[in-house]
Amino acid sequence: MTDSTSPALFEYLLRLGDDRLVLGHRLSQWCGHAPILEEDIALANIALDLVGQGALLLKLAGATEGQGRSEDALAYHRDAVEFRNALIVELPKGDFAFTIVRQFLVSVASYFQLEALTKSAHAELAGIAAKAVKETRYHVRHAGEWVLKLGDGTEESHHRAQDALDALWRYTGELFMGDEVDAALVRAGVAPDPASLEPAWRAQATDVLRRATLQLPADVYMQRGGRTGRHTEHLGHMLAEMQIVARSHPGAEW
Amino acid sequence: MTDSTSPALFEYLLRLGDDRLVLGHRLSQWCGHAPILEEDIALANIALDLVGQGALLLKLAGATEGQGRSEDALAYHRDAVEFRNALIVELPKGDFAFTIVRQFLVSVASYFQLEALTKSAHAELAGIAAKAVKETRYHVRHAGEWVLKLGDGTEESHHRAQDALDALWRYTGELFMGDEVDAALVRAGVAPDPASLEPAWRAQATDVLRRATLQLPADVYMQRGGRTGRHTEHLGHMLAEMQIVARSHPGAEW
Repeated sequence: MTDSTSPALFEYLLRLGDDRLVLGHRLSQWCGHAPILEEDIALANIALDLVGQGALLLKLAGATEGQGRSEDALAYHRDAVEFRNALIVELPKGDFAFTIVRQFLVSVASYFQLEALTKSAHAELAGIAAKAVKETRYHVRHAGEWVLKLGDGTEESHHRAQDALDALWRYTGELFMGDEVDAALVRAGVAPDPASLEPAWRAQATDVLRRATLQLPADVYMQRGGRTGRHTEHLGHMLAEMQIVARSHPGAEW
Repeated sequence: MTDSTSPALFEYLLRLGDDRLVLGHRLSQWCGHAPILEEDIALANIALDLVGQGALLLKLAGATEGQGRSEDALAYHRDAVEFRNALIVELPKGDFAFTIVRQFLVSVASYFQLEALTKSAHAELAGIAAKAVKETRYHVRHAGEWVLKLGDGTEESHHRAQDALDALWRYTGELFMGDEVDAALVRAGVAPDPASLEPAWRAQATDVLRRATLQLPADVYMQRGGRTGRHTEHLGHMLAEMQIVARSHPGAEW
């Protein structure tokens, strides 16, 4: 990396890390609340994978910036405006259908993103992506099977899954919107153009959604803001809860 | 197993399963609240192991009783008086020191219990124990390292760890108290006499606690009640939270 791409690289790694940290935290809110033990364990395992991926990416982000903050400093001592996750991952967990449909839409996008990043010119990032893409393949399969069960299940489960899809669709566009940060990293061979990942995502997502007898929402205005720190109020509430222990006792172990 | 030991076996499996399910749930309450990401992930992994062990043991319990309840029915549709866990695992999570000291005391006991159960005449139980004892070896090491760090750490961390040990000690005795349920299973070669596990537990626990510069509490009256359903109020509160989703939507996936 040249020096001129370092600020862009830091921003990009925050986006990658925050997407996973925030989604992992949202998913971990099911801990002990899922309606069946097996699913409680499966969701917690996926949440752990995501928090683990987020921690690795934030650690690399910290090593990239001048200040050299740790992954803990980045996770626990940034305010909402400093977070760079897409809005879709910060929305409250909702019901089980909402959680599953979001998990599916985001996991498929993450899968193609990570797959492209395994070929990154940045060796450490490529290494993290190689590990994460294997985990994400399982996340896609798990969520996809549930989307089929819910969408093509009872009237109630179909209705809830369709409501979730309708509510979430307007947040999917942000996952594929690029800006000057992405452009700099594309030029350096570090990252893919987000827009280039959209067709594969759309093909896989719509295939599963159609088989689940769910109706694709009409084209809607796509929400954005997370990549530049303009978040929903939900992120602030979530961070308040996530950060309280670390902030109450700086440097201590409680 | 002869028919006459089946009710005892069911009771015994509930004790084994509930100890792990309840402790796993208490530990999962740290999800997203630990002060460092690495520890958040470690605690969540241990919680997952425990809930997984609990689910296997409750599944076996369900297969043992006449009604044939599933592990989900046993986890989500029993009231507090029907739970058979020792009181020590149901106490609120407290601060990090309390969580760690409890985790250490219980994990060491669980380790020796599971090790004995690998030789059980009940093949399925022996199989579950063989898997669980490997996980528990790691739990002991993890908690033991933290006990040393906290006890032999700062004045504040030492103080908190000592407070935790003083509060928890009176609940350790119940882990080694036997009754007619244990006696029946000892006769059938299915389970060890709980009292026979106490010396090894005490030796290992006191060794680590002394190295952590913690003072062993004086002999106190040991609390009991969990094995016969006489629980603290804390279990009821915890179960209300853990069971609400499953009970609100019986048979559904939310």
